[in-house]
Amino acid sequence: MWELDRQDVEDLATGAAILGTGGGGDPYLGKLMALSVLEKGMKIEVIDPEEVPDDALVIPSAAMGTPTVLIEKISKGTEVVEAFERLEKYFGQEVFATMPLESGGVNSVNPLTVGARCGLPIVDTDGMGRAFPELQMTTFNIYGVPCCPMTLVDEKGNVVLLDAIDNVWAEKLARVITIRYGGTAWISLYPMYGRDVKRGGIPNTLTLARDIGRSIREARAAKSDPIDAVLGITGGFRLFEGKIVDVERKTVAGFARGEARIEGLGDDSGSEMVVQFQNENLVAIKDGDIVCSVPDLISILDADTGLPITTEYLRYGYRVIAIGMPIHEKWRTPEGLKVVGPRYFGYDIDYVPIEERMRG
Amino acid sequence: MWELDRQDVEDLATGAAILGTGGGGDPYLGKLMALSVLEKGMKIEVIDPEEVPDDALVIPSAAMGTPTVLIEKISKGTEVVEAFERLEKYFGQEVFATMPLESGGVNSVNPLTVGARCGLPIVDTDGMGRAFPELQMTTFNIYGVPCCPMTLVDEKGNVVLLDAIDNVWAEKLARVITIRYGGTAWISLYPMYGRDVKRGGIPNTLTLARDIGRSIREARAAKSDPIDAVLGITGGFRLFEGKIVDVERKTVAGFARGEARIEGLGDDSGSEMVVQFQNENLVAIKDGDIVCSVPDLISILDADTGLPITTEYLRYGYRVIAIGMPIHEKWRTPEGLKVVGPRYFGYDIDYVPIEERMRG
Repeated sequence: MWELDRQDVEDLATGAAILGTGGGGDPYLGKLMALSVLEKGMKIEVIDPEEVPDDALVIPSAAMGTPTVLIEKISKGTEVVEAFERLEKYFGQEVFATMPLESGGVNSVNPLTVGARCGLPIVDTDGMGRAFPELQMTTFNIYGVPCCPMTLVDEKGNVVLLDAIDNVWAEKLARVITIRYGGTAWISLYPMYGRDVKRGGIPNTLTLARDIGRSIREARAAKSDPIDAVLGITGGFRLFEGKIVDVERKTVAGFARGEARIEGLGDDSGSEMVVQFQNENLVAIKDGDIVCSVPDLISILDADTGLPITTEYLRYGYRVIAIGMPIHEKWRTPEGLKVVGPRYFGYDIDYVPIEERMRG
Repeated sequence: MWELDRQDVEDLATGAAILGTGGGGDPYLGKLMALSVLEKGMKIEVIDPEEVPDDALVIPSAAMGTPTVLIEKISKGTEVVEAFERLEKYFGQEVFATMPLESGGVNSVNPLTVGARCGLPIVDTDGMGRAFPELQMTTFNIYGVPCCPMTLVDEKGNVVLLDAIDNVWAEKLARVITIRYGGTAWISLYPMYGRDVKRGGIPNTLTLARDIGRSIREARAAKSDPIDAVLGITGGFRLFEGKIVDVERKTVAGFARGEARIEGLGDDSGSEMVVQFQNENLVAIKDGDIVCSVPDLISILDADTGLPITTEYLRYGYRVIAIGMPIHEKWRTPEGLKVVGPRYFGYDIDYVPIEERMRG
């Protein structure tokens, strides 16, 4: 068990935004929400998945919707707690802990708020090891854990309790409800017992996010390269350096879809990279060739500070470095690639792990 | 308390389709569903609202969606029971009875199925006294009864439990869920106690529907005019006689919207009537002038048989008689007209009761 202090929260929000691969929501908002509970004197306690008893109930907390809308909507900070408490009440069993479902600016931090407010620990794991746009895209899904029952709450006070027949139907129904809510829902879902947390989760992603954020901060303080620090911890690769020259972004069916076009600088002069996204970055295309694809992680970092730029903040003129990072092995199975491989997102290519691409 | 036999069910389905004013779903389907429970030896027992104790819980049963889709989807007949039982379980209190929320082909009959299958009586009342297209359009709403919690079930087995902040939000959220389900949802909603059933409902509409259906059947057997029989019971008026020459119908935002154009015959030769609908008939326009509008009832009947034709069965060439019937006084208040008056449906006119229009 470790307790998060202010510095941990800030580091974690930064690191989570890098794992969020452009999605997962504004890390700054997430950070503010978590800091506000610390300021109220509440504690944020994180436990290792191995500390969760097999038959203890864990209920994750998250937000879903378009990040571009999330930044326009003011959360009272209590919606995500309401979603959690409604699902807890529906279950009628004692809850042992909460946890994140994805790593991302807002969704790594939401469970911290819930844990602190409800006096519960947060399990150091999640079901993606990065951010993904759809509810069925979790390693828990691969291990047969149902997404439902789930709750969806909006800032007005509407509550939906969803009991879909499978995780794909949960996504379909939750998506239209989220759109009708106005673009954002605060959710609680994938209630599960300790044995599934340990079997299905990607372990220690809160620690990883904190470590990434810390390494950037320390590198900047030491005037060394923060991007080298990130690549060191994640086993990632530099994909491209350049200047953003064009960003297309529209909200389609409740998702932020689009692409960013980057004109090469330095070693990449004369080349161009296009990064396409659906909330999260999906593929990085250099001069017409895919150089990194889902489920591997693609993040766009500020070239000077090493800080992540989420899709909703991509702007013309930013000097950026795109990096690619290997995904956790749980996603690299046939079952995993069926759910989050390039073909699911409409790209007619086989998945090639980034390490292989970089060797070749 | 009275028990419905096969003949009652058939009469009730016919009469309810007339009160359904073009909507409320195919009376034939509704009849088949109710007959099938009688054939299984179950009983359909109807009680007067005055027989419901003040503090007894009553949970209504219904279907929502586009009638044009409903006729294409095969119901197992158990979905509406599932919706009812899920809401009952959520409430955790003993249920005294079920009841209809609207008068209409399918929605007058759905509660009969639920009552028979669950061994509960059906209260002889509803919240519309006709059919209306949206959930907040009930007299219970005017009397402050919340629509939520409500359940929505589809034929695949998906279940949603909705707890919206008000009845308009219940409609908005239930509508997108119904559309995502594929166009039809089996629902249970407006759970309420006996005192609200008696205070807010339009009483004895099952009896009225049965009596209308019976009068048509008896008139036809006696070779007298079935339409006169209907007008006698309902206090209604002949609006127009003619032949359908055009029907426009499309599914918009989960509703069947459109209009039927009728060319005059007999006394109405040389005139034209247009009946516009949103699931239900909204206004009847004769030679450019509105002669009957919501919330008064407009039904289109087969000129020969007196049997109702719901909007989804309107076809070129049908010889029809359009009739108008006065709505229950509970809708004729300022509060009622705000919810179901012509302005709500986009017509910039004041409501004039049909009796006044016919006198003038």
